[in-house]
Amino acid sequence: MPMLEQLETPALLLDEARMDRNIERMRNRVRRLGVSFRPHVKTNKCMDVARRMMETPEGPITVSTLLEAEYFAARGVKDILYAVCIAPNKLDHVAALQDKGVRLSLLVDNVETARLLAAWAKVRGCRADVLVEVDSDGHRSGVKPDSAALLEIGRYLEGAGVPVKGVLTHAGSSYDCRSVEAIRAMAEQERAGAVHAAGRLREAGIECPVVSVGSTPTALFAENLAGVTELRAGVFVFFDLVMAGLGACRLDDIALSVLATVIGHRPDKGWTLLDAGWMAMSRDRGTASQPVDQRYGLVCDLDGHPIDDLLLLEANQEHGIMGHRSRKIEGALHLPVGTQVRILPNHACATAAQYGQHKVLGPGREVVATWQRISGW
Amino acid sequence: MPMLEQLETPALLLDEARMDRNIERMRNRVRRLGVSFRPHVKTNKCMDVARRMMETPEGPITVSTLLEAEYFAARGVKDILYAVCIAPNKLDHVAALQDKGVRLSLLVDNVETARLLAAWAKVRGCRADVLVEVDSDGHRSGVKPDSAALLEIGRYLEGAGVPVKGVLTHAGSSYDCRSVEAIRAMAEQERAGAVHAAGRLREAGIECPVVSVGSTPTALFAENLAGVTELRAGVFVFFDLVMAGLGACRLDDIALSVLATVIGHRPDKGWTLLDAGWMAMSRDRGTASQPVDQRYGLVCDLDGHPIDDLLLLEANQEHGIMGHRSRKIEGALHLPVGTQVRILPNHACATAAQYGQHKVLGPGREVVATWQRISGW
Repeated sequence: MPMLEQLETPALLLDEARMDRNIERMRNRVRRLGVSFRPHVKTNKCMDVARRMMETPEGPITVSTLLEAEYFAARGVKDILYAVCIAPNKLDHVAALQDKGVRLSLLVDNVETARLLAAWAKVRGCRADVLVEVDSDGHRSGVKPDSAALLEIGRYLEGAGVPVKGVLTHAGSSYDCRSVEAIRAMAEQERAGAVHAAGRLREAGIECPVVSVGSTPTALFAENLAGVTELRAGVFVFFDLVMAGLGACRLDDIALSVLATVIGHRPDKGWTLLDAGWMAMSRDRGTASQPVDQRYGLVCDLDGHPIDDLLLLEANQEHGIMGHRSRKIEGALHLPVGTQVRILPNHACATAAQYGQHKVLGPGREVVATWQRISGW
Repeated sequence: MPMLEQLETPALLLDEARMDRNIERMRNRVRRLGVSFRPHVKTNKCMDVARRMMETPEGPITVSTLLEAEYFAARGVKDILYAVCIAPNKLDHVAALQDKGVRLSLLVDNVETARLLAAWAKVRGCRADVLVEVDSDGHRSGVKPDSAALLEIGRYLEGAGVPVKGVLTHAGSSYDCRSVEAIRAMAEQERAGAVHAAGRLREAGIECPVVSVGSTPTALFAENLAGVTELRAGVFVFFDLVMAGLGACRLDDIALSVLATVIGHRPDKGWTLLDAGWMAMSRDRGTASQPVDQRYGLVCDLDGHPIDDLLLLEANQEHGIMGHRSRKIEGALHLPVGTQVRILPNHACATAAQYGQHKVLGPGREVVATWQRISGW
């Protein structure tokens, strides 16, 4: 097994012990909350990681693309929720997955899509497990829990012979919270919205067995999930600077980092040049809107400890400019050419997506495995 | 051959006719300027595209990673410049490429790296074609044209038996220009800096045959390149909204777009939901600092014509929120579920990197080919 120092840079590092601890923490939450767990695999896109998150080898899981569904299905996962409203041009792909024995749940948030889906199911003579997406926080898609559209979609589907499996909501606004109290309130809003929507469908005679909620922050801080049947979360497996900024994890819970090398200095500017730019980190600057802006990433030593408030201040495609958070010149230039550093990312989903593999770090800087990831659609 | 409408979304589209026109335009520039051309392949990472840009099947080309060097070398390219200062942990990879017959030119901008490089060349008994990186605009790496460091590096390399092949500069600040006049001035600054640096090395008895300059904006607007031997540029092959904002191209020169599908609406907000978020577009918001901010991309119809000032206003991982530039609600919601649109990207390098392939568009919306691209390091 090679040591960390022997890797060519940039490289995506995954600290196995931290990851396992993060998974254990979520498992304990799920147990305490008394719901089932449907991990979102969009952050890792990797069977080696997902296997440790799943309740059984057959799932359930949540995916963000049909390529993820295909990849995980080929590795034995049977119960998959595609958590983006279905587009008509994806239905042939859905059918191909069903033909392979996947129980693929689909999402709708409007009658137009429900109609296209029902027509397709009828022509193909196949079933579709459909959830109605509910908007609990105004951040994206879904119908409001108390809208007429919710019942309209539910009734249309039932009438067309497509059973409504349940409702789903995602409180993405939790990422913008500024305190644990605010996340807790958002978790309750997410729960209440989904449960209210399910209740209205049931009152209308639509069974709606599943009530699915989740985001990493709300999953970690929800106080109770009464009425909810299923929790989803994904980024918790790696965590990142945005999550640390929210108070959802500590810096030393972040399991993902980018290994980079010092390639030069600009003493006149207080800059140290690294061979990791936005291609290695992604352009995600999620902490820019948080109280502490970590620019393109927080720089750590090879053991994962932050170095003197050094940040990746700027990023070109393959060049990163490291300097002191204050942009002071003095004392910011002490790492010689060839020094390797680890950079904690703003957003694990975005940074990891730039790589085809995770280099898995065991104890003592040893690279114990290489885990492939998929990308694309 | 499938038609555009049959593709599953999101997909990366490449308009072949526009690309060929962009390449022809650059060829004419190079001819008029009387220099040789070393296209940068970091934007396309694709042999099918690079083949059309290159002066001969053996190159020369510029790359941003050693994986690109490896990929293009495996397809017959022999003359490759790796345009990021070399890191010590990459030297084994360099040697492996040399062993395959690649003439790989390396970059240094400091004596520390020169020393590591010379020691390596000596131990391995191999030659290294080395260029000294010159900073002509203060935006990133390199030594100032009139610095003591320039001569120090040159003398060190010569003394150590490593011939200095030349100097290289990249006026990346041209991306921040606000007028064609400013780009023209930047091109002259880039030229003058490189030529001055080469002159100083030659006065010190160091031959320095190559003077390499370039960026797409300066390459397109330079009025003369007296003293320059070689021009580099990459993004021109596709162009993008940042280049259009600079005046370096028209909107209908942009050869790259992302095909996406309407998946829902939020009438209360004036939002149309698309199945293309930041994973499909990248997080690059290069136009945010330009006079016209195009948010996450400008929305066009299937023939590539902008639709009513619709933009991809916001982006989640796999969801995009399309709406009117003004964020007005009325008139922003007329595209029904299932409608396909093409989104022009801020930055071609960043958006293309999110995909494993280009879907090549011929005349009449026909998809005439699929060209693979590489990613990673």
